[in-house]
Amino acid sequence: MTHRIAILGASGYTGAELVRLIAGHPSMSIVALSGERKAGMAMAEVFPHLRHIDLPRLCRIEEIDFAQVDLCFCALPHKTSQAVIRELPKTLKIVDLSADFRLREAEAYKTWYGNDHVAMELQAEAVYGLTEFYRDEIRAARLVAGTGCNAATGQFALRPLIAAGVIGLDDIILDMKCAVSGAGRSLKENLLHAELSEGFNAYALGGTHRHLGEFDQEFSALAGRPVRVQFTPHLVPANRGILCTAYVSGDAAESHATLARAYADEPFVEVLPLGSAPSSHDVRGSNFVHIGVVGDRIAGRAIVVAVLDNLTKGSSGQALQNANLMLGEDETTGLMMAPLFP
Amino acid sequence: MTHRIAILGASGYTGAELVRLIAGHPSMSIVALSGERKAGMAMAEVFPHLRHIDLPRLCRIEEIDFAQVDLCFCALPHKTSQAVIRELPKTLKIVDLSADFRLREAEAYKTWYGNDHVAMELQAEAVYGLTEFYRDEIRAARLVAGTGCNAATGQFALRPLIAAGVIGLDDIILDMKCAVSGAGRSLKENLLHAELSEGFNAYALGGTHRHLGEFDQEFSALAGRPVRVQFTPHLVPANRGILCTAYVSGDAAESHATLARAYADEPFVEVLPLGSAPSSHDVRGSNFVHIGVVGDRIAGRAIVVAVLDNLTKGSSGQALQNANLMLGEDETTGLMMAPLFP
Amino acid sequence: MTHRIAILGASGYTGAELVRLIAGHPSMSIVALSGERKAGMAMAEVFPHLRHIDLPRLCRIEEIDFAQVDLCFCALPHKTSQAVIRELPKTLKIVDLSADFRLREAEAYKTWYGNDHVAMELQAEAVYGLTEFYRDEIRAARLVAGTGCNAATGQFALRPLIAAGVIGLDDIILDMKCAVSGAGRSLKENLLHAELSEGFNAYALGGTHRHLGEFDQEFSALAGRPVRVQFTPHLVPANRGILCTAYVSGDAAESHATLARAYADEPFVEVLPLGSAPSSHDVRGSNFVHIGVVGDRIAGRAIVVAVLDNLTKGSSGQALQNANLMLGEDETTGLMMAPLFP
Amino acid sequence: MTHRIAILGASGYTGAELVRLIAGHPSMSIVALSGERKAGMAMAEVFPHLRHIDLPRLCRIEEIDFAQVDLCFCALPHKTSQAVIRELPKTLKIVDLSADFRLREAEAYKTWYGNDHVAMELQAEAVYGLTEFYRDEIRAARLVAGTGCNAATGQFALRPLIAAGVIGLDDIILDMKCAVSGAGRSLKENLLHAELSEGFNAYALGGTHRHLGEFDQEFSALAGRPVRVQFTPHLVPANRGILCTAYVSGDAAESHATLARAYADEPFVEVLPLGSAPSSHDVRGSNFVHIGVVGDRIAGRAIVVAVLDNLTKGSSGQALQNANLMLGEDETTGLMMAPLFP
Repeated sequence: MTHRIAILGASGYTGAELVRLIAGHPSMSIVALSGERKAGMAMAEVFPHLRHIDLPRLCRIEEIDFAQVDLCFCALPHKTSQAVIRELPKTLKIVDLSADFRLREAEAYKTWYGNDHVAMELQAEAVYGLTEFYRDEIRAARLVAGTGCNAATGQFALRPLIAAGVIGLDDIILDMKCAVSGAGRSLKENLLHAELSEGFNAYALGGTHRHLGEFDQEFSALAGRPVRVQFTPHLVPANRGILCTAYVSGDAAESHATLARAYADEPFVEVLPLGSAPSSHDVRGSNFVHIGVVGDRIAGRAIVVAVLDNLTKGSSGQALQNANLMLGEDETTGLMMAPLFP
Repeated sequence: MTHRIAILGASGYTGAELVRLIAGHPSMSIVALSGERKAGMAMAEVFPHLRHIDLPRLCRIEEIDFAQVDLCFCALPHKTSQAVIRELPKTLKIVDLSADFRLREAEAYKTWYGNDHVAMELQAEAVYGLTEFYRDEIRAARLVAGTGCNAATGQFALRPLIAAGVIGLDDIILDMKCAVSGAGRSLKENLLHAELSEGFNAYALGGTHRHLGEFDQEFSALAGRPVRVQFTPHLVPANRGILCTAYVSGDAAESHATLARAYADEPFVEVLPLGSAPSSHDVRGSNFVHIGVVGDRIAGRAIVVAVLDNLTKGSSGQALQNANLMLGEDETTGLMMAPLFP
Repeated sequence: MTHRIAILGASGYTGAELVRLIAGHPSMSIVALSGERKAGMAMAEVFPHLRHIDLPRLCRIEEIDFAQVDLCFCALPHKTSQAVIRELPKTLKIVDLSADFRLREAEAYKTWYGNDHVAMELQAEAVYGLTEFYRDEIRAARLVAGTGCNAATGQFALRPLIAAGVIGLDDIILDMKCAVSGAGRSLKENLLHAELSEGFNAYALGGTHRHLGEFDQEFSALAGRPVRVQFTPHLVPANRGILCTAYVSGDAAESHATLARAYADEPFVEVLPLGSAPSSHDVRGSNFVHIGVVGDRIAGRAIVVAVLDNLTKGSSGQALQNANLMLGEDETTGLMMAPLFP
Repeated sequence: MTHRIAILGASGYTGAELVRLIAGHPSMSIVALSGERKAGMAMAEVFPHLRHIDLPRLCRIEEIDFAQVDLCFCALPHKTSQAVIRELPKTLKIVDLSADFRLREAEAYKTWYGNDHVAMELQAEAVYGLTEFYRDEIRAARLVAGTGCNAATGQFALRPLIAAGVIGLDDIILDMKCAVSGAGRSLKENLLHAELSEGFNAYALGGTHRHLGEFDQEFSALAGRPVRVQFTPHLVPANRGILCTAYVSGDAAESHATLARAYADEPFVEVLPLGSAPSSHDVRGSNFVHIGVVGDRIAGRAIVVAVLDNLTKGSSGQALQNANLMLGEDETTGLMMAPLFP
């Protein structure tokens, strides 16, 4: 049986990544691709690397017959996404890649995103899309909210440690190094090759990055009490990859054992031997997460490093993994391709 | 039925690329990996991006029981390759990725590679591995010689034009731009990030690059008379990709039509509309070739641009394509993954 | 004596490069900086790398008192430049970095730039700014037109050869590899880091690049008859540098000797030993040009390779060199800094 | 008066950077350049970007007549450096760029570098070369020990804060992002372009990086009691630049005011407005340090970010700044060039 797939917002990087992945999926078929500003164009014009694939032309959302769609990926900007999804058939399975259904509380959404949420009635049924930790809910869900890419990386590093109570909760620091595709295809001066390459910088310092909303929600729920972390992202001159260096108090060996146990049966999460740390080079283009734990010379301090590809495991790969579950497919279908190196 | 595969020289980039590709192949299983200097190590230590794949440890060649191998990829340096292959069972199917069996004449080999060939008796049965032009011979071959990556790129641009007689033969210029992985994992100062990034340069100027041996052999055979081209490679700061800008005399529209016709049924070769040119970005990590033709303001001059990924279509992908044919599989099996962009 | 300098269009890359260079000039002082869209801002906000320099704020052009200015650099877009310069005092020394005064014929200007020229009356006094070949005229000029960066690179490679009649005129091919800063600070999708890095492509193929207007004009004047070259630029993932690979018919040794003689006393032009070729890495951030000549295996064919930094020698460095001459300073003042490597 | 300068170890990156800087110095003249493995070669062969400069050939150290040298820069590997310096004339002024004279205690040296120090008798007179904090001692010194590049970056961020007692001493975390030229011109697999570009990773985790010896020594001396920080360096795909993200407890505004005051008269240190953070892009190729302070959403937590160019301010620029002081020159001579951007 072939599942009929629509992708809304197919002219951005996460949309193109979905097409790349689904093109290799044995039981999915893309039946509609929307892209408002590029409606009418062939995907080969917008993304020439996809020119060998037989795809529908980009269209406007209202041109899509959703009765002929089994599952819809929504790769639209936040705020737009909630407005669009509100109008879609209430029986349509949806994987949303935007930020619109990640935060359970309307207030938290407004705090981090600045606008009122117009579709809170859908929030109740939305499931947070971090597959490894919400698998059963996702399998049963109609609407899944993909996580932030930084939020995913930090949670892979720390969720099992917080759940097991093996690290301190009041001095967690997440220093992240982020490749540029996470910023999307937006035309901004600081994203130009001439401005971005050959250097690096911190941004959204001091607790202002929106993915903190997810950390607050998820870590607090896990701990059973409010948890507030420090999180500083840095833009580095590469296209794919997030590396999270997490500084925590706790025993390194115990943390390592906890992570190794938690992820022992996970097909996409690799825990390295204690004392070694992963590189973003080694997950590029794939759905894998690599995690390492190293103790510090200062007793009682540990460093947890997690890497993933922000466009794959941090976004479109995660979305496909969730779609597989929602459609009754094996979770890993279409996602086992090895990373690209060099 | 699962074909049992050995890879000799698995600790280099083409070896790792073979593993990446074969990991996604439904009817191949890797049973042996050799790497002389790294014998005894796990592939995950040598290439951490492959750590999720269950693979045999690297071993020395003499440890391999070739009776249990159906096909052997040989990703060793030239000169080593011929010495090793000479000692392998005479019934073993072999795809050689080195330069050792590309040139039919012993003299040509010595001219370009500087040493005497020690296994010329095998040359007689070796088939030149440019799949799209030697498909039938490859299907029947025991020993296939993979092409040079630059040689492949230039031939995709020009073979149909030379065969059809639509371009001049005496003023062909191939200006190539080459990513660095083509140089392999060798420790040379000019391949260091600090030396290579942020700039570019020509090398092997003036008709000294070894892949000219292949151009001479193949273009002359096609034309039925000696053809000598100018070929200048340039090293550019990227990891994958070769772009060949071919300057020829001839009619652009006729050249375009000729190429479009020649490649109409090829699964991996895309000819762009007349007047547009391809980018190396759009074939990265894939087995596709993109070709464009543009006329010049100077009447009777045309520019043909071809791009491919040197590690995939220019080397390991081509090798797998050939192995599929030799093993009776569909030629495209395991090779249809879309390029990685961005 | 300190010369009072104004820079119009200081919020672009060539403007910033002028500030960088002039900051180290012992007898120039920047008294005005214009930037229409960023008027009112401090340069440190627009270009934080210049924050240690005491500079006037960006203003609008009409706010500048040109009576207090000795020389004005005009780093505005073409078409804007001619309209602005037409209104400036007729006694003001001007170095224009745009394309507006490079082409002597109104018709040629319209052919390449698409619009009518509105200040052809100034064209008569404009001197083409390729310092090494127009030195005396520049010294006496009031208005100097900076050259195109590709046009400069190709002319450094070939002018002495055409002048001496040692190469053929009817089969010249210029294949250029260009870093991205030549495209300026413009917000275009293909200039984003995610789109540009890790790959390369040809553009403006087939004789459509505007710098051909300069080649046509200059090479024809030198040869005393029409000369039309083929010129294909390629965008490569680096920020600074142009490398021109020129394919010509002629004797390599004679070409080398001709170039060595022509540039023997030039402070900024280095001719490498016959048989070696330069790298863009070695001129980065400097006003130097490196040129190499290599013979081909095909008798009678030579390859001339020239490199320069498009923002320095190809634009702002050239402009300062010309300004030095116009102001009676030593031509090299403020320009002898060594390239930055790595 | 012209000071006669020798550079030992001129074939590495810090040696070449010294030549680049000294070439623009009005009162220094390079009289000798050593490079053991490349003795006899012209610098233009080893570093073609310096080919326009008239320089002595590389020689072996024993060929240098140190009676004709006023000051010697020693850019040799640690361990070699101490052995060489021990044999130099006891009256020769020396700026050592290695690690050999940075640590005052023999024991600390052995702990971090693994070997016994063979010239501890010289350690007594060695001055730690962080100019802004040891200016008077450096002016009077014969032997100055250049700092580690990471050690310099972290100290610029934190010294004034520790000295003023405005931050906590027991929970300092330094997360650094380091460009690759800091690793030198060494032939290692992980420094190859193909391995390093397009990704990033932590290294020397857990308190094992040698520059911790300097942090321990300097911060403890400042605080008057032992201080141990956490320090994790990360390799990022760029050639120049170190960015230190320092996580501290303390008041951001107070920290900012303290830094602004401390560096108010420093020619090379720029403190940004409170709440903004610097980028490594903005100091590239220069001797400047940019520092920013941002408060966190968590009360009592501050983030201090410092950037510098590891080859200039972190190494050769610092060395020249110190040499200026030792020779009675103005400290900034030859060092005021603006950063290169883009």
